[in-house]
Amino acid sequence: MFELDPHSSYMMPAHFGSRPLSPKASGWYRDVTSMTVAFLTDRERLAAYLPEPWEVAEDAVVTVTYACNRDVDWLAGHGYNLVAVSAAAVFKGERETLVGSYCLVMWENLTDPILTGRELQGIPKIYADIQDHSVIAAAWHTNASHFGHKILDMNINNLREPTAEETALAEKASAGRDNPMAWRYFPATGGFGQGLSAPTTFPSENVISQAWVGDGRVDWQQLTWEQNPTQFHIVNALAEFPVLAWLPALVAKGSTNLLVPDRLPREIR
Amino acid sequence: MFELDPHSSYMMPAHFGSRPLSPKASGWYRDVTSMTVAFLTDRERLAAYLPEPWEVAEDAVVTVTYACNRDVDWLAGHGYNLVAVSAAAVFKGERETLVGSYCLVMWENLTDPILTGRELQGIPKIYADIQDHSVIAAAWHTNASHFGHKILDMNINNLREPTAEETALAEKASAGRDNPMAWRYFPATGGFGQGLSAPTTFPSENVISQAWVGDGRVDWQQLTWEQNPTQFHIVNALAEFPVLAWLPALVAKGSTNLLVPDRLPREIR
Amino acid sequence: MFELDPHSSYMMPAHFGSRPLSPKASGWYRDVTSMTVAFLTDRERLAAYLPEPWEVAEDAVVTVTYACNRDVDWLAGHGYNLVAVSAAAVFKGERETLVGSYCLVMWENLTDPILTGRELQGIPKIYADIQDHSVIAAAWHTNASHFGHKILDMNINNLREPTAEETALAEKASAGRDNPMAWRYFPATGGFGQGLSAPTTFPSENVISQAWVGDGRVDWQQLTWEQNPTQFHIVNALAEFPVLAWLPALVAKGSTNLLVPDRLPREIR
Amino acid sequence: MFELDPHSSYMMPAHFGSRPLSPKASGWYRDVTSMTVAFLTDRERLAAYLPEPWEVAEDAVVTVTYACNRDVDWLAGHGYNLVAVSAAAVFKGERETLVGSYCLVMWENLTDPILTGRELQGIPKIYADIQDHSVIAAAWHTNASHFGHKILDMNINNLREPTAEETALAEKASAGRDNPMAWRYFPATGGFGQGLSAPTTFPSENVISQAWVGDGRVDWQQLTWEQNPTQFHIVNALAEFPVLAWLPALVAKGSTNLLVPDRLPREIR
Repeated sequence: MFELDPHSSYMMPAHFGSRPLSPKASGWYRDVTSMTVAFLTDRERLAAYLPEPWEVAEDAVVTVTYACNRDVDWLAGHGYNLVAVSAAAVFKGERETLVGSYCLVMWENLTDPILTGRELQGIPKIYADIQDHSVIAAAWHTNASHFGHKILDMNINNLREPTAEETALAEKASAGRDNPMAWRYFPATGGFGQGLSAPTTFPSENVISQAWVGDGRVDWQQLTWEQNPTQFHIVNALAEFPVLAWLPALVAKGSTNLLVPDRLPREIR
Repeated sequence: MFELDPHSSYMMPAHFGSRPLSPKASGWYRDVTSMTVAFLTDRERLAAYLPEPWEVAEDAVVTVTYACNRDVDWLAGHGYNLVAVSAAAVFKGERETLVGSYCLVMWENLTDPILTGRELQGIPKIYADIQDHSVIAAAWHTNASHFGHKILDMNINNLREPTAEETALAEKASAGRDNPMAWRYFPATGGFGQGLSAPTTFPSENVISQAWVGDGRVDWQQLTWEQNPTQFHIVNALAEFPVLAWLPALVAKGSTNLLVPDRLPREIR
Repeated sequence: MFELDPHSSYMMPAHFGSRPLSPKASGWYRDVTSMTVAFLTDRERLAAYLPEPWEVAEDAVVTVTYACNRDVDWLAGHGYNLVAVSAAAVFKGERETLVGSYCLVMWENLTDPILTGRELQGIPKIYADIQDHSVIAAAWHTNASHFGHKILDMNINNLREPTAEETALAEKASAGRDNPMAWRYFPATGGFGQGLSAPTTFPSENVISQAWVGDGRVDWQQLTWEQNPTQFHIVNALAEFPVLAWLPALVAKGSTNLLVPDRLPREIR
Repeated sequence: MFELDPHSSYMMPAHFGSRPLSPKASGWYRDVTSMTVAFLTDRERLAAYLPEPWEVAEDAVVTVTYACNRDVDWLAGHGYNLVAVSAAAVFKGERETLVGSYCLVMWENLTDPILTGRELQGIPKIYADIQDHSVIAAAWHTNASHFGHKILDMNINNLREPTAEETALAEKASAGRDNPMAWRYFPATGGFGQGLSAPTTFPSENVISQAWVGDGRVDWQQLTWEQNPTQFHIVNALAEFPVLAWLPALVAKGSTNLLVPDRLPREIR
């Protein structure tokens, strides 16, 4: 008979034992290359997607981040790509007020971190084929698709060293990233009614070794149920956000730690 | 502000609305080709993986099933492959006794059904690259791997029309499959402690149009954390089950309905 | 020292020996599902892509065929998908006149048959990610892409049993397919100047077990060098063919033999 | 009617025009990470795979090189992985004597460079799924497989800065790599008899920005026709080379230029 050890961490299938640990594992993503494109959008339109007690932040900014994660310790040095979309938001809970970003959706091209992200932190991760970024004539590009139908194209051109002002902006944005938040939700068995529902935060520590600033764009497709039956409504919602202004885009290389001591993923209230 | 409709079914990200529906969607998997290999194993060894109140069934049978699912209605006609491992088991709950199979693990090569399976029914689905079956000289083969490291090979040879006796055996096995069961478990935020935990059953309706019986084998690899950091403990546990006798293997073509009216996925007690 | 056996067939790397043979191998593709969409186009525009001594056939028809090939004997029962584009054409050689189809391009999602097709028969095969066809509400769909950028979408709707007239048309088309032709061309080492150049034909034997007729469409993308640096010029050329009329589209299941005795691939003059 | 421009470079399909050029294209692979493992083997055994007029070099060394190629200019910044196996060899032609390496086989995970490599330079490239290298606890790993069946594992451990002596050895090896050679062979149409046959060399320029030395190993699988019908004979031949001694293994980062002015790919005599 299998019994849970109350001091261990389990995911399905739980009966084979707790999540594998290795002395070699850690929270470090040792080789991370990222492209970040952000834009100002309509405040009301964005607010429609934020559940209580989140509110749109002072600036109604949507940020789209591609990351090429390599040398990931908990994956024994394997890696994966992601495209995350988040809204600048403030969590106004009963006990805490947190300024940061609310994760609208995160596509990843590997199922393992999708499962841990959803089940441990409540990050709304779903699958897409995400191309390794291509770099040609100083222009960076990537795209994501599912079932052969493209979701988005992401481009950054005209890269240059950041000015002092831009570095300050990037640091401000990065500070906001210190409070990434999400809504962990599982339905009751069968899908109807609520099983678990809680706001969460999952801080990370980012070390930037190189960074450039440029002009970025994200181009979304409009999709039908026939083309992407599980995600078309998400893609279409994102495609409809008005772009009032593109903000400076960022390309960066560095590393990330997802298990920062004293700042582990937790529920917020 | 986003609000949940209490009459709808949601999965993360929930704030884009309830799970997409289409009048074209249903529970039908219209084109299913399967290979089933089963063996008798040691009763005590198998029992070690069953949580209360499941017990090993009269015969300690482990069944490995490959399915090539095509024309899947809820995926808008797309498909995927799976390899499922289950134990013949009896659920002896406070209110119900169910004879059927307990799902030990289910590998699939598409993330979408992995997420719905885990979150709606509690099926312990995880990812693997699963080759489309190959057929050469009347021998059927498939294999599964992850990060380039093979998990298992599955072969069925010497296919022939089933005898009346074998058809009876297959029908008996199929009857057992009428109560597929699993343990739906989600940890608390962060991974430690229990969030949701409940036994479930997810009946299906199987229509077989063609079937053959043959000699089957499953060969498991032994893996290290470095090779498959998220699943090696599962694969190694399965590789260590003693095979006391191989049962007749089955190749079948047909269709499957996962949403049988009056027999929807539910918790059992 | 390695030496060629003059009676064997070699491909690079040749020094490991001749192409592997197995008593289980043959020319049969035992499980083939195909979608065929054809249209009338502008005669002059089509003629611009035909080298001497090919001419556009009586009707300037371009045919786009998707095939899902499974249980392929020479691949030990593995399979692959293809999308072929051909022009109805007449070969008017010095010695032979052949009415059939001239292969403009053939995308496949497996490198092995791309290499044999190019090097043994001169079929202009190149790579694409080609989705397994999806079938929903009696509509068939597939698409092809490369580097994440879509090449084409292919759809067939309103499927019905063929009328006697349509069966006759299909048989006529199939007869035309009996003389599939291509231009086998290899440059000199380094790429400039001619190495080998010859017209070829590669007959096949097609057994149709089921067929339906419907309304089909192919939608091409316009691509840039940055999106698909090796194929954009091919895709753009095909996208620019005017569609004067869509012909009845075909869905078929059956099998194909690529090694028909007495009708093996050969050069034509 | 399509006509070849005698001053352009064509590959099939030739009738869509010459190979696409872009002012952004060049011979540079701007981001190359490589793992190199070499061993001494039995001289006679190795000689059996070298056609005339190649002979095994002074030391009977087989070198296995993994390269993760990114930011490849001619692929518009896309990339691919390769695993190459070569023999230290001397070409003793009628006019030239070249000390360098003879390419036994090169696996790549992208069809586009496989086609150009085979058809323009005669490099015996074939396809495999090649994992991006994983790095954990200073150990580097990759593997290659096809049809789900592994071909080889490659590991380098105990990495350290190279000593002066090792740097000298590496430079000597790199100097040898300056004359990479291959046997360009195409059969006659249909596969039997010779179409084109010529020895070639394809020099490259390698810029190393970082390098480490360590202990490396390559482990080959033994495969059947059923598992890998197009390559099993190659893999089995390589698996049977005796390893008399492993040489120091190398991990390197840098860039590579495949189009070195005045040293373009050419036939040798």
